[in-house]
Amino acid sequence: MIGRLNHVAIAVPDLEAAMAQYSGALGANVGAPQDEPDHGVTVVFIELPNTKIELLYPLGDESPIRGFLDKNPAGGIHHVCYEVEDIAAAAARLTESGARVLGNGAPKIGAHGKPVLFLHPKDFNGCLIELEEV
Amino acid sequence: MIGRLNHVAIAVPDLEAAMAQYSGALGANVGAPQDEPDHGVTVVFIELPNTKIELLYPLGDESPIRGFLDKNPAGGIHHVCYEVEDIAAAAARLTESGARVLGNGAPKIGAHGKPVLFLHPKDFNGCLIELEEV
Repeated sequence: MIGRLNHVAIAVPDLEAAMAQYSGALGANVGAPQDEPDHGVTVVFIELPNTKIELLYPLGDESPIRGFLDKNPAGGIHHVCYEVEDIAAAAARLTESGARVLGNGAPKIGAHGKPVLFLHPKDFNGCLIELEEV
Repeated sequence: MIGRLNHVAIAVPDLEAAMAQYSGALGANVGAPQDEPDHGVTVVFIELPNTKIELLYPLGDESPIRGFLDKNPAGGIHHVCYEVEDIAAAAARLTESGARVLGNGAPKIGAHGKPVLFLHPKDFNGCLIELEEV
């Protein structure tokens, strides 16, 4: 069912410092910051030859990243995102397996404009998994 | 400098359950467990179309994964591994930037038989980064 790894998201406490690090010391191809006010994040994509790293920085008081950074002040790997062809079928299959889809259980439109859902990390080895329909 | 994302490593408290989850509910292509006694881990590779997920489970009393699982009993994303062409040059460049290479600062032979190094997570947004020469 799951296809490509679409991205790995890393929550960072200092976006400019993280961008400088990835473009400088690590020599990667770092994009421009994009504000996603509907999702409470500013995102920066780092293009690798086979996938992307997504730097996440809180935007606004209600940002879902803020609690994560309160618990992990240095930042940390926030989630991985796997691609699926049919997110409704994926949601049904996962729910049937006993896994919990976060929120009301239905896919939503994610920060990239595509249908996404998040799976409960407690059901997946402490790892927050995003599924994105492509 | 950094190239492909070679793998994302997830430390898991129950290897069989994690394998069943990835092959079953998530429908991925899950390999056989491989013991790496020199590195204190049992690894399972999950092949995605563009990269790999590496499940890590402690092997032996000195396993470097055990402390992580003590702190994160449900498991969690342990590290990401980026490929580099010349690991000695990468180590020099990173050290010059002020980043700390774990251990004695020199690359070692990793669990896949290739030269690797790990960067201090405090220097990289709380994210443990492995570099592997390919």
